[in-house]
Amino acid sequence: MIKDELKSFINTIHFAHIGYNDDNNEPNIKMVFCQYHKGISNFYISTNTSSIHVQQLKKNSKACLYIDNQDTFQGLMLKGNIIIHHDHEHKAALWTAEDIQYYKNGIDDEDYCVLEFVVDSGRYYSAGRSINLEKELFINDSEDKIVKNL
Amino acid sequence: MIKDELKSFINTIHFAHIGYNDDNNEPNIKMVFCQYHKGISNFYISTNTSSIHVQQLKKNSKACLYIDNQDTFQGLMLKGNIIIHHDHEHKAALWTAEDIQYYKNGIDDEDYCVLEFVVDSGRYYSAGRSINLEKELFINDSEDKIVKNL
Repeated sequence: MIKDELKSFINTIHFAHIGYNDDNNEPNIKMVFCQYHKGISNFYISTNTSSIHVQQLKKNSKACLYIDNQDTFQGLMLKGNIIIHHDHEHKAALWTAEDIQYYKNGIDDEDYCVLEFVVDSGRYYSAGRSINLEKELFINDSEDKIVKNL
Repeated sequence: MIKDELKSFINTIHFAHIGYNDDNNEPNIKMVFCQYHKGISNFYISTNTSSIHVQQLKKNSKACLYIDNQDTFQGLMLKGNIIIHHDHEHKAALWTAEDIQYYKNGIDDEDYCVLEFVVDSGRYYSAGRSINLEKELFINDSEDKIVKNL
């Protein structure tokens, strides 16, 4: 089943590329750590509030998330929207001891925020196939807990 | 010098991510083989004419090319435009023996085309730094010959 294949794939990743538009409505990309998710529909990314992609996503939340494995030639292009979280709960959920090197004031550092990418639809490339992933596949697929990939 | 650092970095890559907009002006990403270039300003990518990204780039040539190394945390975000080449010369320049598995009619297969990404400006992430790369850096940096990375 395609959903099981996607779940297995998503459980292996550590990085992703976010696509977003700038003030001129032109496409930009940023590579990010992407290890936290709820099922296949919600992805959580810790990042700097002051960074260019966050500033642009504040103005235009439409985004895509591209997950790939260059060895297996798998690619997952997800379209959706970004929610920017500044609350303690989201920030604590993703915080690790090493993050102190980036955010000297700890979990509540104002420059630390959590992006939540909410999937709307997608396309999956694997073994020469290209499969459209409709909205229905992602509905109610957000599991209860944020899980961190190994 | 930043240009030398960029040249060394670009000479090591095999893949890149192209960012482009769809009919709704929303960002999309596609991972592509990216081994051919002239200097640091022109990148050449062989791809299927029928693929979604080529069809969209035909309508809106504004694009970005993101090159990264996940081990060294280097990232290069290039903004520019895509030119789609269907002529024999460009297609022959990038053709390799293995391509016959994708394009059964050979070099002149209508489904085979070459994307040329022409850089306008960029941003370079390395060792915790983020450097804006102005237009001037890329002017006259297209060398004579298309070079293939090892």
